[in-house]
Amino acid sequence: MEFWFEFGSTYSYPAAFRVEEAAGNAGVELVWRPFLLGPIFKEQGWNDSPFNIYPAKGRYMWRDLERVCEELQIPLRQPSQFPRNGLLASRVACLFETERWLPEFVRRVYLANFGYDRDISKSAEIVSILKSLDLPADLLSAAESPESKAKLRAQTERAGALGIFGAPTFVSESEIFWGNDRLQTAITWAQRHERARSR
Amino acid sequence: MEFWFEFGSTYSYPAAFRVEEAAGNAGVELVWRPFLLGPIFKEQGWNDSPFNIYPAKGRYMWRDLERVCEELQIPLRQPSQFPRNGLLASRVACLFETERWLPEFVRRVYLANFGYDRDISKSAEIVSILKSLDLPADLLSAAESPESKAKLRAQTERAGALGIFGAPTFVSESEIFWGNDRLQTAITWAQRHERARSR
Repeated sequence: MEFWFEFGSTYSYPAAFRVEEAAGNAGVELVWRPFLLGPIFKEQGWNDSPFNIYPAKGRYMWRDLERVCEELQIPLRQPSQFPRNGLLASRVACLFETERWLPEFVRRVYLANFGYDRDISKSAEIVSILKSLDLPADLLSAAESPESKAKLRAQTERAGALGIFGAPTFVSESEIFWGNDRLQTAITWAQRHERARSR
Repeated sequence: MEFWFEFGSTYSYPAAFRVEEAAGNAGVELVWRPFLLGPIFKEQGWNDSPFNIYPAKGRYMWRDLERVCEELQIPLRQPSQFPRNGLLASRVACLFETERWLPEFVRRVYLANFGYDRDISKSAEIVSILKSLDLPADLLSAAESPESKAKLRAQTERAGALGIFGAPTFVSESEIFWGNDRLQTAITWAQRHERARSR
């Protein structure tokens, strides 16, 4: 199962904290897929988060997210800037998406942004997260290489081609499941198809 | 707990089939609240369903709804016209929202629209649903009275005042829960507060 996420996306935050355990418990193989919502929102005519464009929806989302995070016992502090630009963090995540440290890196970026209102668009913030994981800061320059930029661009294009229009989205057998609320449905789907294959 | 629904809303269909049993099992008192999304969408700058305005979202929704209805074992046939105008049905539902037959009337209107692609905007269709419940057809003329129209208008305004921006929405203790996916969360919330009051 693929887990498609974007660092500016609010509901991707709890999803990033649930997905590894949920997939592991179900014996479903998990692939992390960072991408950018910006280009996808632009195609829908949005130059901002729909939660900013539609205030009633935005007010509801922050309250709802509060309830979701409370249940999950992860901190939430409404970022002083929303959405934050997750481009840099996404490039790191995309270039190193198969590394063993990747899930923990992703969770720490989300925590920084939504738990502690840290500015994840800044190199210094990403460097400090890499250091907290005992990773070399020069991963950042690799992530800024033309190859790395192209990789994230291609991944975002693939998201669009899959029919992804928001985050988080779970993909299994080219079936898409949108939203943190759909995690369990996606896992059940993936399990059923893995079982069918192994028969 | 209040169940706010609109007859054109796709996810209100499964919610209408789940809400009574779920609330009953939990011992939560249920109030049915028909309203119109049109005026609320207009304030957000939409003259059509967002599922029509944003095609990727719309394609996903129909597929997702298929999965949801399959699990619930209720029929789904994508209506040849979407969204259908539920004004007439909403007036009936709003005027008679406390009647014992109301929940079944609501479910049959949803079934007609989303299960059998019947044109619920037509009087004949609503009359036939009323008849199927052994109810007199002249309820329809009562629903078309100025008082009835005013009641639905006021109810829709109250929806907006509560911060409702979509359907279905569950309301408990002025906390709002948006979407069929939030039914259980809303019920748990309502239970907790009823228990707190009875202590």
